[in-house]
Formats: sequence, C-alpha cells, structure tokens
Amino acid sequence: MLYIKNKLTFDKKNVESLAKKYGTPLYCYSFNKLKSNILELKKYFRSFSPLICFAVKSNTNTKILNEIKKFNLGADVVSLGELMKALKAGINEKKIVFSGVGKTSTELNYAIKKNILLINAESKSEILEIEKIAKKKKKIVDIGIRLNPNTDAQTLSQISTGKKENKFGVGEKVFLQLVEYIKRSQNLNLKCLSVHIGSQILNHKPYQNMLKVVDRTIRKSKYKFEYIDLGGGMGIDYEHDNSKLNLKKYSQDIKKFLKIHKSKIIFEPGRSIIGNSAILLTKIVYIKEGDKKDFVILDVAMNDLMRPALYGAKHKIIPLKKSNQKSKKMYEFVGPICESTDTFSTIKKYQKLKEKDFLAICDVGAYGVSLASNYNVRPKPLEILIKNSKVQILKKRQKISELI
Amino acid sequence: MLYIKNKLTFDKKNVESLAKKYGTPLYCYSFNKLKSNILELKKYFRSFSPLICFAVKSNTNTKILNEIKKFNLGADVVSLGELMKALKAGINEKKIVFSGVGKTSTELNYAIKKNILLINAESKSEILEIEKIAKKKKKIVDIGIRLNPNTDAQTLSQISTGKKENKFGVGEKVFLQLVEYIKRSQNLNLKCLSVHIGSQILNHKPYQNMLKVVDRTIRKSKYKFEYIDLGGGMGIDYEHDNSKLNLKKYSQDIKKFLKIHKSKIIFEPGRSIIGNSAILLTKIVYIKEGDKKDFVILDVAMNDLMRPALYGAKHKIIPLKKSNQKSKKMYEFVGPICESTDTFSTIKKYQKLKEKDFLAICDVGAYGVSLASNYNVRPKPLEILIKNSKVQILKKRQKISELI
Repeated sequence: MLYIKNKLTFDKKNVESLAKKYGTPLYCYSFNKLKSNILELKKYFRSFSPLICFAVKSNTNTKILNEIKKFNLGADVVSLGELMKALKAGINEKKIVFSGVGKTSTELNYAIKKNILLINAESKSEILEIEKIAKKKKKIVDIGIRLNPNTDAQTLSQISTGKKENKFGVGEKVFLQLVEYIKRSQNLNLKCLSVHIGSQILNHKPYQNMLKVVDRTIRKSKYKFEYIDLGGGMGIDYEHDNSKLNLKKYSQDIKKFLKIHKSKIIFEPGRSIIGNSAILLTKIVYIKEGDKKDFVILDVAMNDLMRPALYGAKHKIIPLKKSNQKSKKMYEFVGPICESTDTFSTIKKYQKLKEKDFLAICDVGAYGVSLASNYNVRPKPLEILIKNSKVQILKKRQKISELI
Repeated sequence: MLYIKNKLTFDKKNVESLAKKYGTPLYCYSFNKLKSNILELKKYFRSFSPLICFAVKSNTNTKILNEIKKFNLGADVVSLGELMKALKAGINEKKIVFSGVGKTSTELNYAIKKNILLINAESKSEILEIEKIAKKKKKIVDIGIRLNPNTDAQTLSQISTGKKENKFGVGEKVFLQLVEYIKRSQNLNLKCLSVHIGSQILNHKPYQNMLKVVDRTIRKSKYKFEYIDLGGGMGIDYEHDNSKLNLKKYSQDIKKFLKIHKSKIIFEPGRSIIGNSAILLTKIVYIKEGDKKDFVILDVAMNDLMRPALYGAKHKIIPLKKSNQKSKKMYEFVGPICESTDTFSTIKKYQKLKEKDFLAICDVGAYGVSLASNYNVRPKPLEILIKNSKVQILKKRQKISELI
C-alpha cells in the first residue's frame, strides 16, 4: 500500500477506482503481498525446509487456496468442509493435516478414505474412534497426537490455545500413555507430535517455552517422531508500528531443537500468510455529530468483519485520499448494525472526513470473510484479487435475493 | 419443556426422538411457546393496545415471521433484506417500521416505494437523505426521529444502546432542532418519537427513566406525536431462576405516561417473543478428561450459536435423559471449533454424561440462527417447528456441497 499524490494504491491499482467500479463493501486482496509473505516464511525457515500447511480456517476462498497451493504449500484443516475445499483447490492429500478437538466419525472416515498426511488427534476418545474406523477399513492410519504444552502464548485470551485450561490437546501424562497405546495398535501409526499455543503471537519467548516442553516430552516418550507440527500463531503488525515476531530467532531455536530431534517440521500458519494481503473498502454512509465525538457510519458492519466485535481486535482504518485537514472531534467508526458491538475504532485527530468518502480497513485477509455472516440479512461482500495488474473476482457479491 | 419419566419433552414431543430422527445440531422451535409469549405481551399491554412490531433481526426465518404475522403483529426491520423478508412473510407494510443508523439510499428508496408505516431516522443526514428521495418521488414520507435518552439499560454493555456514547439516535438538543426542521419540510411528515435503550433488560427502572426523558423531550418539543415507539429490550429468563422483567409495572408506567401524551404506542420486541421458544439439540462427540475439569465436546459450535462467544452470554444446557448420578469433576461444554472462544458453559456437579448422549441448549430462538455463520466451513443447522403435534421443516440443513 502506497499513497501516490495522496491517493491510496494497492498493488499499483488506484483503490478508489476499485471501490467505485466494484462497489462497497469490497474485500480486495493483493497477490504480491500473499506471495511475499510465503516467500518470507520460506526464507527464514529455509535451512530445515518445513512443510507449510496453510490454516484454511483463516481464509477458505478456493481461489486463494489454489494460489497458495502453487507455492507447494499444504493445508491444515479442521472440518470436513475445509478438507473438501483444500482437495478441491488441488492441494495434495499428502500435504494435508487434520486438526480439531471434535472430529466426528463422518469426518474421520472421509479423511482416512482420502489418505491425508496426518490426523492430529486431540483426545484418547478420538484415537479410539480412528482406530475403530481403521480396523473396519483394514488400514493403517498415520496420526499425530496434539500435546497441550501449558504454555502462555501472551496473546488475546480468546485466541490462546496452549494452556491446560483450554480444550486443546492432551497434557504430558496422557500424551505419554497414548504413545504407549498407539505403539501397540495394529491400525495406528504414530508419526507426529503436534502443538499449537495460540494465534497472533508477536513475542518469540512463548515459542521458546513451547519448544522446551516439546523437547522434554519427546525425551520422556523415547519415541522417534517423523514429524513435529509446531502449529501456527505467527503474529502480524495490525498496529502498523513494526511490532513483528522475530522469525530469525524462532528459526534459530528450531534449528537448535532439530540438532537433538531429527524430525521434519510442519507449520500451520494462516494469518501470517494471508492477514495483511487484503483490505476491506467501505463508503461513509453518514457522519453524525455528537457532543464529544462524531460517529462515522460505514456501509461495512460486524457481519462483514467480525474480529472487532468478537475479540475487541483493532484494524487500522485509512482514507483513500489523504488530506492535511484534521477533525476537531474524535471519530468513532461504526457499522450500520443495531448493536453497540458493531463498532470498529475510535480515533483522535483523524483527517477530516465527509459523507460518501471511501476508507480502507487494513489487514483483513485472515478471519475476515471466513468469520462473516448474514446477520441483519446483509449479503456477503464481493472479494477481488489483484494479480499481475489484473483484477480477478474471487467470490461474487451475494445477492439479497439469495437470502430472502 | 417437561421431563416425563426422566425424558425431556418439548411441546409434548420426546426430544431425543427428534434428535435421532433429524440429526444434530438441530434448532427446534415450539409454536405453543411462541404463541403464549405473544399472548402474554398482548395481555399486559391490553389497556392501550400497542402496535407490536417483531424485531426481525432476532429471528429472520420467513416461516417464523409468517406465524408471528398471524397474530397481527408488525415488523421492526433494520435493513433492505429484513424489509423484504417481512413483506415476503405477508406482514402488512403499514405495520412495518424501519430502524438503523446507516440506512443507505437504496434502502430508503425501497422503503419509501413500499409505503411502510415509519422510517425511524437516526441522524440529521439521514433525514436530509429521506427528504431528497421524497422530493424526487413527489411524496410525503412518514418518519420518526430516534431519541437517544442517555439512559443506562443495566444490561450487557454490548447490547446497551441508549447511552450518549452509543451510536444510536440523537440527543435531546438535536432532536428538538430536527422537529423544527421537519415541521417546515414539504416532503416529510413527523409522526413518531422512537427510543430503544438496549436488549435483555430485566429491571423496569431503566424503562421508567427512559419514559421520563421521553416525557420531558415531548414537552419541550411542543409537538404532538401520533406514535411513541418505545423499542424492545424486554429480557427473558436465561438463567431459569425466575428473573423476569416486571411487565405489569412497565405497563402501569406507560399508562401513566399516556394520560399526558395521547399517542399510539409501538413496541419492537424480539427476544421476549421468540427467545425461549427454541432449543438447540446437540450430541456429545467426545468427553476428554482433564486435571480439574472434563471437556464435553459437542457437535454444535460458536458458528451455530454465537451469543456465548460474542457476549459471554450463558445458555442453560440440559440433558435429554435425566439421571441422579453426578460427575465428580466440573464439565466444560465446548464446541469443536479451533478457538478458545468456542465454549458454552462450565458447570459443577452436572449429571454424569457419556459420549453420544444428547443435550439441549435452551432459549436459543433469538439471535441464534440469525447470527450463525459458516465459520470453519460448517453448514448451518436444520430448523424445525413443532405445531399442533406435528413437525414442520422451517429451514433445511445446509449441505456441505453448497459451501465447497
């Protein structure tokens, strides 16, 4: 993103022209950004060339998945629907891992039929269910066990997943029991230890702690894991203040770890690949003056972008045309939905805005459309991708008639 | 809901049979409950026979809207989609009010074309927009102005809407200016003062305060409003501990108010009509033992019922088969989605459960399906209605193939 003569450009396209041509709300993705994110991850981790499985839950658009696939990435899926989408996008089944605490029998059956790389099981009950299905199908199924490392990811509590009070994985004691169980099973092949401590992590220390716990658990298990799945969680710079996870440090820590444990590393990043590759364009419907602040009422709402309402997450909101005139009052940027939760940000000293101006909400590529709903019978927005200076439709705007 | 021989019944139907026949997750509505809720509201407010406009955002199912219409109710809509749904359900346009802070030009055009009862405007800009359209169409449009009474509804902050820091309505000063403006307009006819202080209100005092502010503002305006729209917000007993809004007291306060101001009252209830008329049936996928608590992993998730994740709201969870055996450990009831937010309740001394048991999540008729999404590529659940001992399909279960 770049302002040229005070006008916002995204992948060299004038953003206001896009908003006018395609209408708002509009999700707009940059192929270049997506590509550079993937290449950056690959660069930092080059020395041990991990299998990078894109976390499909962060963005389920089939065309996006297909673009990601072309960089030889795999997929981390958490449901039958996501698994089917990943396969439809052409992702090789031997690069797909299946996570999640509540995989149903139907889902496991399908995954086993498709011979995916790994089912990462999260409980004894699930392992018994997989074994039962494998026995019936006379198959040996490759699985992992998800360890709950009881590590604080130092992120939002709602997206922290690696503490023992969270529902994910099993503690060390149960983990070791399950290793012994699977070793004796005729139909299960234990290939992987998986962990995932949370999302939007900007400090490498929690990862260090996590690696220590993984190291300890492997030693205790005396088991040789072909794969260590370290999950995802690598945070992005939502605040645009250069707060960034130190990938170099994380990579070095993993290299040290791999000197002891000779396994193949799997990553499950979502946000760090797709998060900052999209902006959400919106038009100001009304500006309502208040005593202490003015309400900037947008045509985009919590149904289109749920993260602020759900997590109190903040996304930068930037004008498509820059000016030097400042507003005297604070602006609260809100959506049109009849809930107080439908609010995006309150900002002081913002540039003076007027009705019908366009704005861009930044970094909405991850958990944007995938969490969107039709609340207030609002159709889902159009999604476009800028690639090689051309605009592709990723997903058509939903018609109201589809909802009536 | 009643346990007969320890088995849960809902409108005299055995609930487990429904869960087995139709599968889970399953939204199950009771016509009798819906009916008795409507009749109760009508009874309490009989002396001034208000126009009751059902808040469509709480439940947008067209068949439900059609049932509600048969009791001569109107609709409170907040978007073009909701307005079209209300009309499709057969609700008379002269019983429809249109609320919302960000009505677009397209939405206003449609509402004006359809000659609905009232557009309740929430800002000066919106009033100017309505006037512009009315002028173009050579029409006189009936409108209301939403007053923000700066009243604390004493409810969850996320669903409190009547304080001046909230985006809704206009303060008294602007309200009075707008009354003067509209009086002089050739194309606007001011018919209504509307207020709405929030949702899930259990204490009648905030309503009393609200009525005081409304009274004061009307006096100051010296305007005769044909309608006073008092909004909705009447709370329901989610905790099942008989906490209830004192409707009698509220009704008496309104009667007192009407002795001074001879207007027709409009209500916009959603939750109090549909909230407790539905249960959400779910099956236990796995039970995972933990140190201090066991995780009961359900096949229903935050995408099916968003209120707990979004507002920290609690819904009672009850077994379909009662037993006296208690679990030694706490149960945390969670969904299968890969977010820590996907959790419903943590309960001590719950009856002992086992995998594949069924449970019912109570009071999900309002803001249940209307807030549902396809997060994690999960299809939306089936909705059924029990009416006259027969089961009607309200909405088919979404097929995964529709999502791929």
